[in-house]
Amino acid sequence: MDAQHPFDDFRSLLEALPAADTPALAAARKRNSLLTKPEGALGRLEEIAMWLAAWSGRAPAVHRPMVAVFAGNHGIAEENISPFPTTVTQQMVGNFEKNGAAINQICATVDLSLKVFDLALDYPTGNITVEPALSERDCAATMAYGMESVAGGVDLLCLGEMGIGNTTIAAALCYGLYGGSAADWVGPGTGAEGEMLERKIAAVEKAVALHKDHLSDPLELLRRLGGREFAAIAGAIIAARMQKVPVLLDGFAVTAAAAVLKAANPSAIDHCMIAHVSAEPGHLRLIQKLGKTPLLALGMRLGEGTGAALAASLVKSAAACHTGMATFEEAGVSGRA
Amino acid sequence: MDAQHPFDDFRSLLEALPAADTPALAAARKRNSLLTKPEGALGRLEEIAMWLAAWSGRAPAVHRPMVAVFAGNHGIAEENISPFPTTVTQQMVGNFEKNGAAINQICATVDLSLKVFDLALDYPTGNITVEPALSERDCAATMAYGMESVAGGVDLLCLGEMGIGNTTIAAALCYGLYGGSAADWVGPGTGAEGEMLERKIAAVEKAVALHKDHLSDPLELLRRLGGREFAAIAGAIIAARMQKVPVLLDGFAVTAAAAVLKAANPSAIDHCMIAHVSAEPGHLRLIQKLGKTPLLALGMRLGEGTGAALAASLVKSAAACHTGMATFEEAGVSGRA
Repeated sequence: MDAQHPFDDFRSLLEALPAADTPALAAARKRNSLLTKPEGALGRLEEIAMWLAAWSGRAPAVHRPMVAVFAGNHGIAEENISPFPTTVTQQMVGNFEKNGAAINQICATVDLSLKVFDLALDYPTGNITVEPALSERDCAATMAYGMESVAGGVDLLCLGEMGIGNTTIAAALCYGLYGGSAADWVGPGTGAEGEMLERKIAAVEKAVALHKDHLSDPLELLRRLGGREFAAIAGAIIAARMQKVPVLLDGFAVTAAAAVLKAANPSAIDHCMIAHVSAEPGHLRLIQKLGKTPLLALGMRLGEGTGAALAASLVKSAAACHTGMATFEEAGVSGRA
Repeated sequence: MDAQHPFDDFRSLLEALPAADTPALAAARKRNSLLTKPEGALGRLEEIAMWLAAWSGRAPAVHRPMVAVFAGNHGIAEENISPFPTTVTQQMVGNFEKNGAAINQICATVDLSLKVFDLALDYPTGNITVEPALSERDCAATMAYGMESVAGGVDLLCLGEMGIGNTTIAAALCYGLYGGSAADWVGPGTGAEGEMLERKIAAVEKAVALHKDHLSDPLELLRRLGGREFAAIAGAIIAARMQKVPVLLDGFAVTAAAAVLKAANPSAIDHCMIAHVSAEPGHLRLIQKLGKTPLLALGMRLGEGTGAALAASLVKSAAACHTGMATFEEAGVSGRA
């Protein structure tokens, strides 16, 4: 008997993802049609409420929203593609723990719990221009770790990341998935410009050329061109689907991890909304490839889950409107003449 | 000595509006540059924080945000331009009071106080196709009433409205202010289509033609083509400026009231941000005339201040980030290499 491949469990999960809950969706649509507003007048808030129903399998509700931030370090940083040193990843994790970062302030404002997962920061992944980022075992173990992050009754999962060098990794994943040119997918990240930006493009070009014969399998693409936070986020997205938890995706890196899953199964991220379109130019291009429409467009490019956390306020409001509004009959409000 | 004209006080106020607080803005810019994020990475959240500083005259903070909803009835409804009867205005005020409307749910979610002001609902304004909406005295008194709504230590004012027929009024104000064609400014509102939409366009055309010789003075335009919630909102915007309260404008009707003030003084609404662009097509056109960029685009068209209330969450988060984030030095995070 052959030894099991580390990816086998994930392949099985990706082939048997639960579908949208059509009775819950039908019930939500019915209630939506009775509420005291002209039909469709709440726009995307109504779309959000229907999405919550479809993927949670019950009436739209957000009582235990959580932001999960996954932090990783990347061998690609050796190529001098970021204006910040890799020590900043660990330092920012410390900043999260001391409530000093933007994501802490937004979570406090919007009333979201926050968990930060640092992923072997002292052991950066392989430099993808010369070797795979992760072994099969390490990639699978990190996906499993990401899956475990969803435990505990969470009913809205906001995914974020921190990792110096990870917009380069996101660009490599996208270039590997969708082609085009490396320059289509590479942007400034935290502020690369001029020669540094050229190096970033060259690194993505070199990495995808090196691994080009192994990219038709999305999970193999993930382990070769990805990184730990990408693997963990992919795992968290799968776990959320299994547990009927709707997901808000943050920026370029998080969305790139989601794109890997969609390549494996076209319906794999139907329970995910894009929280915002970041200022990193590859993000809009990627969102268009996924056929989704972001909720917010605020020119942000910080990561940390900040865009997802802001969008969580919209999702909470959408659920509250759906649940709390009176019907025309209850309120004694006249309908259309 | 001539009797004082009812508009004289407002004309004086509009000529002497306080400017942005440049020391507060400079202090906020300095702090913003020290916070643990790449420069500009919070995008429009940084713009919001600077705007709060400039127009509140102190460090960005939102501790007492309020939504003020002004409700009015309109003689133009006689022209059969809305699918809903005018009784709905009063019924929806009742719904607000019983916490049954969308705005109640969003205010509860975002933690905003809500005040609803009903403006002589039993006495609709004049039908603007045959007479002015308001007398000079009534218009001035309603502006003064709107000014009083801002009392009480509010530090962010979200303006909303309710009034069957008021997208027709908003279209008339815009057509009177900017020209083009009536059809450029008229949209479905709560759901006018077909012949009703044609009647709506014709009513706006007729009203502006009737009053055309009196539209060069913005306050005269407001009283002839406007309505009580428009006058009250204009008053509230002026009062907020005097009291250093930044303002979030909601949809088409609220923005049209603001546009009247900008016509009187080009800087009159510099302390206002457009919370969202509504699905009512005239709103985007109007926002472009004002040279502003909305914070949200969610396809909403409900009014009630719902878009402004959602955007208030972004403003609260922007203030929290500015105030609560650590500096690079405090957090021991390395800067650019």
